[in-house]
Amino acid sequence: MSKNTPNDTPIPTLGRFPILDRVRSPDDLRNLSTDQLKQLAEELRAETVDAVSTTGGHLGASLGVVELTVAMHAVFNTPDDRIIWDVGHQAYPHKILTGRRDRIRTLRQPGGLSGFTRRSESEYDPFGAAHSSTSISAGLGMAVAHHLRAEKDPGYRERNVIAVIGDGSISAGMAYEAMNNAGALGESAERLIVILNDNEMSIAPPVGAMSNYLTRLMSSQKFLSLRDLAGKVVKRLPPRIERTAKRAEELTRGMITGGTLFEELGFYYVGPVDGHDMSQLVPILRNLRDADDQGPILLHVITEKGRGYKPAESAGDKYHAVSRFNVVTGEQNKAPAGPPSFTSVFARELLRNADADDRIVAVTAAMPSGTGLEKFAKAHPDRFFDVGIAEQHAVTFAAGMATEGMRPFCAIYSTFLQRAYDQVMHDVALQNLPVRFAIDRAGLVGADGATHAGSFDLSYLGCLPNMVIMAPSDEVELTHMTATACAYDDGPIAFRYPRGSGVGLDLPEKGEILPIGKGRIVRQSNTNPTLKSGIAILSLGTRLGESLKAADLLAAQGYAVTVADARFAKPIDRELVDQLARQHEVFITIEEGAVGGFAAQVMQHLADSGLIDQVKFRPMTLPDSYIDHNLPNVQYDQAGLNAAHIVEKAASALGVEMSAQQTA
Amino acid sequence: MSKNTPNDTPIPTLGRFPILDRVRSPDDLRNLSTDQLKQLAEELRAETVDAVSTTGGHLGASLGVVELTVAMHAVFNTPDDRIIWDVGHQAYPHKILTGRRDRIRTLRQPGGLSGFTRRSESEYDPFGAAHSSTSISAGLGMAVAHHLRAEKDPGYRERNVIAVIGDGSISAGMAYEAMNNAGALGESAERLIVILNDNEMSIAPPVGAMSNYLTRLMSSQKFLSLRDLAGKVVKRLPPRIERTAKRAEELTRGMITGGTLFEELGFYYVGPVDGHDMSQLVPILRNLRDADDQGPILLHVITEKGRGYKPAESAGDKYHAVSRFNVVTGEQNKAPAGPPSFTSVFARELLRNADADDRIVAVTAAMPSGTGLEKFAKAHPDRFFDVGIAEQHAVTFAAGMATEGMRPFCAIYSTFLQRAYDQVMHDVALQNLPVRFAIDRAGLVGADGATHAGSFDLSYLGCLPNMVIMAPSDEVELTHMTATACAYDDGPIAFRYPRGSGVGLDLPEKGEILPIGKGRIVRQSNTNPTLKSGIAILSLGTRLGESLKAADLLAAQGYAVTVADARFAKPIDRELVDQLARQHEVFITIEEGAVGGFAAQVMQHLADSGLIDQVKFRPMTLPDSYIDHNLPNVQYDQAGLNAAHIVEKAASALGVEMSAQQTA
Repeated sequence: MSKNTPNDTPIPTLGRFPILDRVRSPDDLRNLSTDQLKQLAEELRAETVDAVSTTGGHLGASLGVVELTVAMHAVFNTPDDRIIWDVGHQAYPHKILTGRRDRIRTLRQPGGLSGFTRRSESEYDPFGAAHSSTSISAGLGMAVAHHLRAEKDPGYRERNVIAVIGDGSISAGMAYEAMNNAGALGESAERLIVILNDNEMSIAPPVGAMSNYLTRLMSSQKFLSLRDLAGKVVKRLPPRIERTAKRAEELTRGMITGGTLFEELGFYYVGPVDGHDMSQLVPILRNLRDADDQGPILLHVITEKGRGYKPAESAGDKYHAVSRFNVVTGEQNKAPAGPPSFTSVFARELLRNADADDRIVAVTAAMPSGTGLEKFAKAHPDRFFDVGIAEQHAVTFAAGMATEGMRPFCAIYSTFLQRAYDQVMHDVALQNLPVRFAIDRAGLVGADGATHAGSFDLSYLGCLPNMVIMAPSDEVELTHMTATACAYDDGPIAFRYPRGSGVGLDLPEKGEILPIGKGRIVRQSNTNPTLKSGIAILSLGTRLGESLKAADLLAAQGYAVTVADARFAKPIDRELVDQLARQHEVFITIEEGAVGGFAAQVMQHLADSGLIDQVKFRPMTLPDSYIDHNLPNVQYDQAGLNAAHIVEKAASALGVEMSAQQTA
Repeated sequence: MSKNTPNDTPIPTLGRFPILDRVRSPDDLRNLSTDQLKQLAEELRAETVDAVSTTGGHLGASLGVVELTVAMHAVFNTPDDRIIWDVGHQAYPHKILTGRRDRIRTLRQPGGLSGFTRRSESEYDPFGAAHSSTSISAGLGMAVAHHLRAEKDPGYRERNVIAVIGDGSISAGMAYEAMNNAGALGESAERLIVILNDNEMSIAPPVGAMSNYLTRLMSSQKFLSLRDLAGKVVKRLPPRIERTAKRAEELTRGMITGGTLFEELGFYYVGPVDGHDMSQLVPILRNLRDADDQGPILLHVITEKGRGYKPAESAGDKYHAVSRFNVVTGEQNKAPAGPPSFTSVFARELLRNADADDRIVAVTAAMPSGTGLEKFAKAHPDRFFDVGIAEQHAVTFAAGMATEGMRPFCAIYSTFLQRAYDQVMHDVALQNLPVRFAIDRAGLVGADGATHAGSFDLSYLGCLPNMVIMAPSDEVELTHMTATACAYDDGPIAFRYPRGSGVGLDLPEKGEILPIGKGRIVRQSNTNPTLKSGIAILSLGTRLGESLKAADLLAAQGYAVTVADARFAKPIDRELVDQLARQHEVFITIEEGAVGGFAAQVMQHLADSGLIDQVKFRPMTLPDSYIDHNLPNVQYDQAGLNAAHIVEKAASALGVEMSAQQTA
């Protein structure tokens, strides 16, 4: 228990945070009184608001768990006891308390702290996150591992494993699978404590029957009081067998009035508890920490997103994700008005089509705002479906609608569509059903980092027979592709587009329907087409701008350069590919995706036709590494996908020395 | 209602099935009396047993739903009303009743009926299946689509949509996601009827808290009687609002004694019902069919897997999947004793390692037998985890164990690992955690067909940074790779191996630990290594045998041929690849996977080094199409991955005429 010894080196009180300023690690919390912990929470809240006001980030969720964060670190012996934050975007106060306060103003900044939990960042982050609903599975794995170790070594103290999960996240299938397993494992899972952080608010208002259930559960009960705790929850929870008998008795007498669903899944349910009342949280957590033989526990905590910061409390989204803001007024620094985002361009064109075609329906997995579908939802509420954090269901639900003649759009981020990969393959592509996939956040994503990057969709979708995949080079192209997807009924079709703004083109009144599998020449080399020379750059997606820049640089050196926009990653435009291969010495492809995607499709065709022997084929993809959060252009530089890299690639293929410096 | 007119053309009674022989389509069931339906069920059961005795297949599940199948088609207006069979392997009686009796003895045979439901096979199969737990999502999509149509067109009769799902399948996260959504949709989902086919037996004994719950639910209740039906369930279920009030009253009085969990999710729960009692099933289904405004319904039916066929009833697995068998004795035609399966070779080596290393733990998602882990489970029950049909949880649970120093193996079929793709990426690969993936059923899979083929793992895993991927060329190699995975702690490692038997090699006493990312030359061309000529074949996996055959055929034509076994799809052996490219005129890769996998890795390296300009690179992969169930060798012939195809590929690259015929 050496970790529980308070830090006895006196730390000078530096400023306005007399307690927080003395906290070097969670050890320093463990001898504080409840009143001191309350004050610490207030200081921590102020520090969190101040830090995020300079960096932007996920503020609302963090403000909701300030007291919980303090209470957990005060009661549990972290980092030996494991705290897993589901999603991890609510962990800013946790980061401040666990040795990262000095870097908290680097959150989400280049080279700075991640906006999520991350194993490589701190021993207090035992499991990294960013995608939702993984914490119970990971926590169960840890609890079982400790249990196995303790069985071997009687001297081994089993760690407590605490998974903190929101009411939105716990609705996902994965969380249910984990609870289903944990509840059945009983003794092996006895050190697993799931804290359900119920704020009736995930990113969007919560949906689904489970959410309704939680609301009923909460509203039918008064908060657990200390008196309840002493009597009903008991100091040491009764051993499992007694509990089972007690439970049977309760069932017989019809006494079950709350928590039933979790109890049916084998959890010991405790709650609801006021998640902002330190004098309740601390004793309850102590009680759970010291309880033996109870199997997995679910502690139901009620919190308020944005708590304690007025502008957040009164905002519709509770400051879920904010830009930098003024602490006093709460006013966010809006980015200067630029071109509309790809997201909004997609949403606009989809809505235009849906107004005219009532077969068009839209499905989102808890991201009505992020996917741009809010206006669609308002205009066509009966054709808009937010299924909750449930990507697997979203895709097959859409497949079911497609069998009955609807034209469903699944609007899911590239990285989250990974959650529904089997459904895309087994329920959609194999059956050749016309489900439309609007895949946002394709490619690198800036401040959200590797967990949110859409790096793999070209590979994981490209290998599926029947799948059509488009990628727009700009917002006008996205308009066309959205219209094309609306009209395409022959099978599944996907289009992937990046985070962020378009390039500033005027949008057409309506999108054109593109011919499937045809690209376009954007810049024609001036060479005699019968003469094989020069460089062809075939770009998929928004690297087209860099490709054109590279072409200018190369042209300035006297090279003939053709640039084409592939438009389709699958099926590729074979005629165009053949033409580029036949007429040029070097053939570069470029895409914002990992190996195995567009380039692999082009290569396979070139090899099958033998044309690969006649051209210097040079595919440029994302590198085989995860790229940390950073400014987008820095990320593309790290990835080697900017104009200078294209120039270098061409030069090296031609066997000439030509650095970007020279050409620029 | 023309579909309800009985077929009035007299059909001669042909044999021993007087009623079944007169059934041409489900229409013919709708005017039969309950006694006639009972007799039909008996005949249908006998016909099913007889048919599967000649084909092999999933017998047990089909026998359990004979009465349910008859009752559903008698009551519902199929195919206008939609019946979706979850997984679809229990649909043999359904196929017999829906116009496919004449082909039922072609089940799972080349060119014959699929062993699962399939849209292209019949209008009575509105949704194809094979992977579990998709039916509620698909059914909800259909129900919602019908509802939208009915809202537009008051004359449109809303179809009933019936999803039949087993107690194993309903435990999966995806089914929960679908129920969570359906329960909240209320009126839009009102024609959705979920039939929970509870036989307390999926492929393996069921696991998890939900299963325990269902057992309690069933054992605490007597079967619903007709009297209950008349009084309690009521002829027309009360409208939703009244029900809500009634439910509130029940809650207050503590009267809820069963079904609570489903009711909390917004379903109207009816049951349990004896699924073999036609005189109960028919009136209850009629009642549900005619009920209005009830929101989604869950009918809990209790059945017995293997019902009515003694050898099946008394078998441990209830004849889940059988070979051809003798109908009288039930004796299955065992395949002649051949080399051990890849599955068993993996299991043997894993167990050998686990005996010596108690950090090794094994996780399966409801496939203890299919993955070969039964002996592991017996030897080390505390280190064996069957998490149920829950691949998402399985992977992250393993990741959690890996963080605590365990050495977890996730043994999951290639096609089912698609269910956990995001977890592999986000929880394992991104965090570089040492989770071992034992990927069975890689490549084509014979009689199970496209739904079960492991075609995509090389593509969907190959694009993930940190992932190591191996593929054994034979069972000795699989032994080495299993040992290698046991010893590898630096990050995630996967090995993928095919369905079926090894080639018959003597197994080593223990596997060797292979150097990561190194292949091996198996046959060296006799050319002067400084002279560039001849053909290199770099094989990944079990196409090595065909590669060697092709080498012999090519050598007979005077060509120098080198054959290498890549062993690793990632990282590739760069030194070996460079050597092959430098020393040969033609460079063929071959793999049992789709485009974007191993060949894409090799190509990217060859292009980056420029060596691709110096060799005729010819990757051979699975084609961009789904390959129907068939004999494995026929499938590989269709895929173009046999020796003759390699010869043709080499010849065409060399620009010579050389058919397989000539070379053979």
